[in-house]
Amino acid sequence: MTQIQGIGVGRGIATGPVLTMPEPLSEPVVAPRTRDAADEKQLVLDALHAVAADLAERAKLAGGDAQAVLEAQAMMAQDPGLIEGVDERIDEGSTGERAVFDAFEAYREMLVGLGGYMAERAADLSDVSQRIVAHLRGVPAPGVPESDTPFILVARDLAPADTALLDLERVLALVTVEGGPTSHTAILARSRSIPAVVGVESAGSLSDGTVVIVDAASGTITVEPTAADLDAAETRTAELQKIASAPITDGALADGHAVPLLANLGKPSEAKAAVELGAEGVGLFRTEFLFLGSTSAPTVAQQREAYTELLSAFPGKKVVVRALDAGSDKPLAFLNDAEEENPALGLRGLRALRAKEDILREQLTALAEAQAATSADLWVMAPMVADAEEAEYFVSLAKELGIRVAGVMAEVPSLALMAPEVTAVSDFVSIGTNDLTQYTLAADRLLGSVANYQDPWHPAVLRLIKLLGDAGRAAGKPVGVCGEAAADPALAVVLVGLGVTTLSMTPAALADVRAELARTTLEQATARAAAALRTSTAAAARSAAASVD
Amino acid sequence: MTQIQGIGVGRGIATGPVLTMPEPLSEPVVAPRTRDAADEKQLVLDALHAVAADLAERAKLAGGDAQAVLEAQAMMAQDPGLIEGVDERIDEGSTGERAVFDAFEAYREMLVGLGGYMAERAADLSDVSQRIVAHLRGVPAPGVPESDTPFILVARDLAPADTALLDLERVLALVTVEGGPTSHTAILARSRSIPAVVGVESAGSLSDGTVVIVDAASGTITVEPTAADLDAAETRTAELQKIASAPITDGALADGHAVPLLANLGKPSEAKAAVELGAEGVGLFRTEFLFLGSTSAPTVAQQREAYTELLSAFPGKKVVVRALDAGSDKPLAFLNDAEEENPALGLRGLRALRAKEDILREQLTALAEAQAATSADLWVMAPMVADAEEAEYFVSLAKELGIRVAGVMAEVPSLALMAPEVTAVSDFVSIGTNDLTQYTLAADRLLGSVANYQDPWHPAVLRLIKLLGDAGRAAGKPVGVCGEAAADPALAVVLVGLGVTTLSMTPAALADVRAELARTTLEQATARAAAALRTSTAAAARSAAASVD
Repeated sequence: MTQIQGIGVGRGIATGPVLTMPEPLSEPVVAPRTRDAADEKQLVLDALHAVAADLAERAKLAGGDAQAVLEAQAMMAQDPGLIEGVDERIDEGSTGERAVFDAFEAYREMLVGLGGYMAERAADLSDVSQRIVAHLRGVPAPGVPESDTPFILVARDLAPADTALLDLERVLALVTVEGGPTSHTAILARSRSIPAVVGVESAGSLSDGTVVIVDAASGTITVEPTAADLDAAETRTAELQKIASAPITDGALADGHAVPLLANLGKPSEAKAAVELGAEGVGLFRTEFLFLGSTSAPTVAQQREAYTELLSAFPGKKVVVRALDAGSDKPLAFLNDAEEENPALGLRGLRALRAKEDILREQLTALAEAQAATSADLWVMAPMVADAEEAEYFVSLAKELGIRVAGVMAEVPSLALMAPEVTAVSDFVSIGTNDLTQYTLAADRLLGSVANYQDPWHPAVLRLIKLLGDAGRAAGKPVGVCGEAAADPALAVVLVGLGVTTLSMTPAALADVRAELARTTLEQATARAAAALRTSTAAAARSAAASVD
Repeated sequence: MTQIQGIGVGRGIATGPVLTMPEPLSEPVVAPRTRDAADEKQLVLDALHAVAADLAERAKLAGGDAQAVLEAQAMMAQDPGLIEGVDERIDEGSTGERAVFDAFEAYREMLVGLGGYMAERAADLSDVSQRIVAHLRGVPAPGVPESDTPFILVARDLAPADTALLDLERVLALVTVEGGPTSHTAILARSRSIPAVVGVESAGSLSDGTVVIVDAASGTITVEPTAADLDAAETRTAELQKIASAPITDGALADGHAVPLLANLGKPSEAKAAVELGAEGVGLFRTEFLFLGSTSAPTVAQQREAYTELLSAFPGKKVVVRALDAGSDKPLAFLNDAEEENPALGLRGLRALRAKEDILREQLTALAEAQAATSADLWVMAPMVADAEEAEYFVSLAKELGIRVAGVMAEVPSLALMAPEVTAVSDFVSIGTNDLTQYTLAADRLLGSVANYQDPWHPAVLRLIKLLGDAGRAAGKPVGVCGEAAADPALAVVLVGLGVTTLSMTPAALADVRAELARTTLEQATARAAAALRTSTAAAARSAAASVD
């Protein structure tokens, strides 16, 4: 038995055999073609057809969103323009492999150059190119492995395209070499309640078929476990099942201190499941779904209808709606400039809305109408707010348009540094720990090479949260957390110790967080927070909090 | 007489007639061609030749770096591939203007797709395209205006390409509609001692020939000044000339409190001029010049030679050298990954060096050898350090390799938030206010649409600087500033009040800062800092500091 360590996501535990996602193929070398051009073209054409047929077949089996992606990929594999590009390169002396690589790459760059929706398709194109090259080499295609029996998926990292194709029913746990607590893998794991350990540097050494225990709570992977290990894992599984099936109560600490537990939602249709899992309301409702994929903003009537559907699911309960957060990794043609060098530091969130105030006014008007039509307690907040001046702008505009409670997201470090001034003018603050961590550590939260910085346990982030908690307490204003941090039970306790009053998360995480809060007093939470604050690194903060009784 | 307001850069004042840089041309409309294809092609060809001839002529006059840029542009205007692209589009029914626009745009996107050096040339290509379209329309070419007599340049914003072509001898002052205190315009103005006011929203209303007074100290532009205004400006000019020609003394407050004034340098050859302007040493020596444009790192011997040349210019004086800061807007092929979505939040600075430690070890070795060969007091610091763990890594590696004094840049907000832990392990801290502001406000400092966020007077930034100043004082470690903020005389005083011990700046700013410090006591500086800290916005911080006697 050996153990390897990573960053655990959630509290789950799973035992099973490893199945590794193949690495991307090496780039075909530039070398002179040895076969006759006609033969080479035919080999490539056969590979194109085989890959297209395989993709089309898998599209049928997949169904849903994945079907459309796979069908589009099957079409790409047979695109006449691409085939022509491949043939030209073979005529010029290139090998088939290299010709495929170069022709797809040229096409990919063109798509990226077009920006927007076409640029998003560029990754799909790379996947098709890899499949064709793999076919030509006679090696397994990179991408999600297939298995008829349940397995533990080990991968360098999972991209959204990978997980769209993944049969999650068969995945017992996820282990990735890269990625941090807010990587796509971690978010997926939390929302589906799949145990995961990310950032496991030595995970590449795990070979297919090896049985491992993945323990998300401790972030450990036990390789070739002993009988005792397996027994312990079974006991843990039983405990976790007990937690999952425990009666749903309102969020509270062991001493009765209430900590309302709310849900992060992206669509009104997700409300029902959240209520069933015990969400006491909504702490973050993202409104981007109404705007994405359109060339203009939806009308006030369209928006009102969607907001009314959402609010109707939470009679008498709190629902925090975030104003459109466009820009960065989700740009909108009618709101954002696609040419930004660093879109995460660009004209996004409230900045973009303020520059096109009509869109903001319409959204707030629709929200006010939905507020009037239902009994939910609607709160509205602005994303990417930098300081008290911007907070005041948003809050006064929202009130002018009839919103009763208006506040701001704390994602930009300056907002936390201006916490006393902000809480003076805002009804509430909601901390978006993902972006707050990204900006505080100046590390792109979607970039693998700096994923290790993306850890909300970093004491620099905790110190900013404390500034917000202290200011909220002094001003008598609620301070919530709606980033991934709230879904980490141990961190949730520390957040409460830092002065956070509500926690909002993916509904699947509610049971775990509820159970952890119920085991802890406010005094303990405060002591854990203080211990974590005094450390120098995220790992030390985790250990320090854990070592407080 | 009317006054308009912006953000002043430096202390200078200038009077003269306005000359406006033409706005970029409107995009040619997509409309059916009315002329015969052959005629249209000939018109375009004539325009291409005329523009190429004009560029070639201007290249001869320009000399230096500008000559190479202009010659390359002249060649672009006659590129056969481009001409072919234009002709094809005309054959397909496009107008000549639109064909030029589209062909150049397609070429530009291709260059951008290639990344690196080629992508940087994309802007030059757009300029050529604009010149050709202007010629076809018979309107003035966009770009830097020409004049035989001195003028005040008014522009939307200045790009590096514009200023390379600008005859600065004739520019009395710069006024831009966009841009903040760290925009390219502001940096240029400071380094050349040209008075500038940036972010002047209504500057577009100034018409050519109107006489204005540009007062950088107050950030005001006085339009059609009265005789009294002109007299006052003349008096100010005389005062400033007195400051500029004042005897050079070491930097100190009125009460004798020493504040060493150092120079920011990018090449050893800049040392002599800095010493002449009274630099007491070097507070930031950027080492990128040794690495840029190469496909591999320079050898230890090459580096040692350059560092020895630099250190030899400052016998017995402090010279702070920054380890290679590659990445973000200055990527290096052998160190950085060009595919980052947000390079400013990517694997840059120390992160990139730590991933390729050999390059860092070689640089530190070369620096230690130069240290041994000269009598300068060499300090070495790492860029983009996030926390105490990274600081400790760098400091211990530097010491292992023989560097006597090793420290870190404070650019990432987390570093300032971890100030006590950082100053415990680092010999010194140097605050890079440009990046610190960019990350604290989460606004790209090179992006025009968010330039208003790039203001080091923002109290959130000042609060982080205070954390560093306090921690430095408590630990007995020096805390310097080497960002643009140090060159703003009023802000320099506030920085000293926040606990900053040295100021490093572009040598041209030394006299102004020296004079301002000499007028102020430590008590006043502390009071101004306290007043600025208590505000909510950068503008309020400026006013609050100014209102303290």
